[in-house]
Amino acid sequence: MQTGKKSQLFLYDTTLRDGTQGEAIHFSLSDKLRIAKRLDEFGIQYIEAGWPGSNPKDFAFFNHLKDLELKQAKIAAFGSTRKAHLGVEEDPQIQLLLQAQSPVVTLFGKSWLFHVLEVLKTTAEENLAMIRDSIKFLKSHGREVIFDAEHFFDGFKADKGYALECIHVAEESGADFIVLCDTNGGSLPWEIGNITAEVLSRCRTPIGIHTHNDGELAVANALVAIEAGALQVQGTINGYGERTGNCNLISVIANLELKMGRRVLPPGKLKELRELSLFIDEIANVRPNPRAPFVGKSAFAHKGGTHVNALQKALNSYEHIDPLAVGNTRRILIGELSGRSNIILKAKELGIVLEENNPNIQRILNKIKELEAKGYEFESAEASFALLLKKTLSPYPPFFNLIEYHVSIRQLPAKNYKVCEATVKLSIRGERIYTVAEGDGPVHALDRALREALAKFYPEISQVRLEDYKVRIVDSKEGTASSIRVWVESTDGKRNWSTVGVSHDIVEASWLALFDSIEYWLLKKTEEQT
Amino acid sequence: MQTGKKSQLFLYDTTLRDGTQGEAIHFSLSDKLRIAKRLDEFGIQYIEAGWPGSNPKDFAFFNHLKDLELKQAKIAAFGSTRKAHLGVEEDPQIQLLLQAQSPVVTLFGKSWLFHVLEVLKTTAEENLAMIRDSIKFLKSHGREVIFDAEHFFDGFKADKGYALECIHVAEESGADFIVLCDTNGGSLPWEIGNITAEVLSRCRTPIGIHTHNDGELAVANALVAIEAGALQVQGTINGYGERTGNCNLISVIANLELKMGRRVLPPGKLKELRELSLFIDEIANVRPNPRAPFVGKSAFAHKGGTHVNALQKALNSYEHIDPLAVGNTRRILIGELSGRSNIILKAKELGIVLEENNPNIQRILNKIKELEAKGYEFESAEASFALLLKKTLSPYPPFFNLIEYHVSIRQLPAKNYKVCEATVKLSIRGERIYTVAEGDGPVHALDRALREALAKFYPEISQVRLEDYKVRIVDSKEGTASSIRVWVESTDGKRNWSTVGVSHDIVEASWLALFDSIEYWLLKKTEEQT
Repeated sequence: MQTGKKSQLFLYDTTLRDGTQGEAIHFSLSDKLRIAKRLDEFGIQYIEAGWPGSNPKDFAFFNHLKDLELKQAKIAAFGSTRKAHLGVEEDPQIQLLLQAQSPVVTLFGKSWLFHVLEVLKTTAEENLAMIRDSIKFLKSHGREVIFDAEHFFDGFKADKGYALECIHVAEESGADFIVLCDTNGGSLPWEIGNITAEVLSRCRTPIGIHTHNDGELAVANALVAIEAGALQVQGTINGYGERTGNCNLISVIANLELKMGRRVLPPGKLKELRELSLFIDEIANVRPNPRAPFVGKSAFAHKGGTHVNALQKALNSYEHIDPLAVGNTRRILIGELSGRSNIILKAKELGIVLEENNPNIQRILNKIKELEAKGYEFESAEASFALLLKKTLSPYPPFFNLIEYHVSIRQLPAKNYKVCEATVKLSIRGERIYTVAEGDGPVHALDRALREALAKFYPEISQVRLEDYKVRIVDSKEGTASSIRVWVESTDGKRNWSTVGVSHDIVEASWLALFDSIEYWLLKKTEEQT
Repeated sequence: MQTGKKSQLFLYDTTLRDGTQGEAIHFSLSDKLRIAKRLDEFGIQYIEAGWPGSNPKDFAFFNHLKDLELKQAKIAAFGSTRKAHLGVEEDPQIQLLLQAQSPVVTLFGKSWLFHVLEVLKTTAEENLAMIRDSIKFLKSHGREVIFDAEHFFDGFKADKGYALECIHVAEESGADFIVLCDTNGGSLPWEIGNITAEVLSRCRTPIGIHTHNDGELAVANALVAIEAGALQVQGTINGYGERTGNCNLISVIANLELKMGRRVLPPGKLKELRELSLFIDEIANVRPNPRAPFVGKSAFAHKGGTHVNALQKALNSYEHIDPLAVGNTRRILIGELSGRSNIILKAKELGIVLEENNPNIQRILNKIKELEAKGYEFESAEASFALLLKKTLSPYPPFFNLIEYHVSIRQLPAKNYKVCEATVKLSIRGERIYTVAEGDGPVHALDRALREALAKFYPEISQVRLEDYKVRIVDSKEGTASSIRVWVESTDGKRNWSTVGVSHDIVEASWLALFDSIEYWLLKKTEEQT
């Protein structure tokens, strides 16, 4: 019995597993934990966190499962059916899946006979037994089991009978979900639609869809399967993944919610779509795609004169959705004038009231444009933005002034000699402070020298520490003379704040971000005391 | 009468017109002429070259039409139906379309009543008259006329009767092709399929399809319309275009030829697909998308150990097509998920034969694991990996040795004084070289000093330059003492190569990547000479 077209649809994210198969995509353990937390808050129902049997980092994630305190998402461990001709209980990979202690296990198994014979080098019957034993074993240990039928569409096209037999065995063995995978990403939308419909007519278990973008059809293929009745959709944020990538959940979610009337997120969450996309790109250190559907910087950018003119008459004349619905904004590329309301809203968030006609708004907009042209980006550096507002809106005496810094890095490989040293000269309340410190690198040394200089006046500075530090080349085509953006997140144990600095010199860019960070902390401290 | 599903299908490229509506896409007149020439040679049947009425550069193109000496393509001039309440012969925009002297004119007109009333601010009847008069006028001057029904799918959904009436008028007036446009890019594949089929059932004129990628569905939507019977497909190379872009003809062509059995190119041309994509990116100064379906650098890049292992057994096990069919190549990525098979395949790519049981494979794997634990990453740094293989497999005398480097960065904000200086001491063939250079930042200064030191022995080093430079904090939770990975892409004009360096000190990490880059270039130069 099909569960019905309008039944609940589940989002299944595999950014942390299939996403990391993408070229140049790497996450540290702490990255993975942050991402899982964010996906849970956003409302993703299943989070595939890794393959415990493939590498130690993937396994380590599961040791931290309990500390994550997820609100609603279920974590899935990924693995394969047991090895051929090996008892399921003796299979070390299956044992690791159990040890992962995740509520859900996603098992992939073959459904394309060619793969069974040529890659697994086993028989059609043994593969069915591998599917059966593995699912039954994990079900007997209380897991929710999702069966990913690898290469299902290719298998179906080559030998429909065998592909359906694999599904049948998975169903009989108690799989909770059977997911049809277009592993090589080469199927066409109508093939996906027809085959999914045929499986649904022969299967009582809920069906899911897993697509890849090799034909530039991943999102369409997922939507077509859902339209046919699939109730789970697997993909990754921003479509990360091997080769051309997995199905992009960002576009799937927006199409489902805005075009197909399917509610897949908690109320109010769709507006965070762009933010989520940028958050994941930032952690992966991937330059956001400006042309990304729904969430890209250019997704609602209008250049053509005809279009801009029409937009003035009717906003939806050249836009398929309201950009605000996904947290994006319209941009007019010629004679651009937008953003006043953004400034007012942002200032309000920071406790600064700005009237609509305040002339300072234009000054702030001009300043932002000037800084953005240099490579600044304030979206994720609210403390730097708050300082900018403060400095523009009222007289602002700095807490300290830099007179000079000097950094020296010397390396003699044959003598195994290396030293990195920074000196800092500041004036604070009329007094001159001069400090020196060593560090692992130039920024580390400078950070230490600065803290030491400030410690006499602000001993609590020892509580302030850096939480996170990121570097991004703004326009890397200029080689080592490129502009560099440094982003820093700081904490004093009570709150976190982020700052940004830009320069052709990485040391200066880091210094600017560190300077803002300390300045912001001093400002907040002063505000609290008065 | 429908022309039949397997009739000839025409490719219509609008890179030169709709493509330039994309953010940051600009072509000079000579760019446009080069692109038109290339598209003609490739086998595109229609090339839309510009809107003569919109700007002088677009018009200038048509003055050069005769000099182009195209082999087979027809050039189309783009424009709109006449203005409301103006005789078609008095309309200056229509006059310019005639003066363009192109064999084909593509006219866009409204088919969504909302646009007629709210944007054109005219009546339903007048819009029909505008379509009729404009087509008849251009037909009477001997032009092939393609009618682009703007916003057709939105119009059909809002007021089917009126949308079909527009089509009917275009057909009656003698249009040679009627193209259904999803101008806002928001339609779903099954909507496109159903509506196209319905139009085809009511229309004898051949139908075309024009889609945009706002829902990440442009390619699917075009293919679905073709499957329903459309005989012309409009798009741009690499999907350039306003907002998220137009339908990507690269993917459309590959899917048509390789998946749908539709011949749209002259024999042998499909193999130039990747080259064409890179050529257009190069002229537009757009960084090629590594994940681009069919033609991207990562489109056939394999990272997961399971996949690489399977590829050794059967090449098509994780590939939907043969990469050579579109002029692309398979790449095996070296990373933490990789095993022995990746090393053997990778070495083979580099011209080094390794037997399955060669004990050096384990040594290389251990070395890679050790370096990866420090933050190295070789999958996109093939030159560093090649050096690692060379150094592990045979005695390897370095081309030069570093004795010492020193970097000094001094900043005095109040005096507006800033200097960044690097000294480098090398030994090359027993000689000591000592150079100093300034730069925008420490890495830039070091890069310059190193090049100056090497120039005496290798004057051709002036041809080597950095193409790209990236910085990534490996585990940013350690703040300014984090490990830093620097990735550098270099070129000597003939080939590109990538290297990597890791350290807690950004200057040292950059140095290591630069050092590998120069070393690899010297190695290749030596190999070529012997």
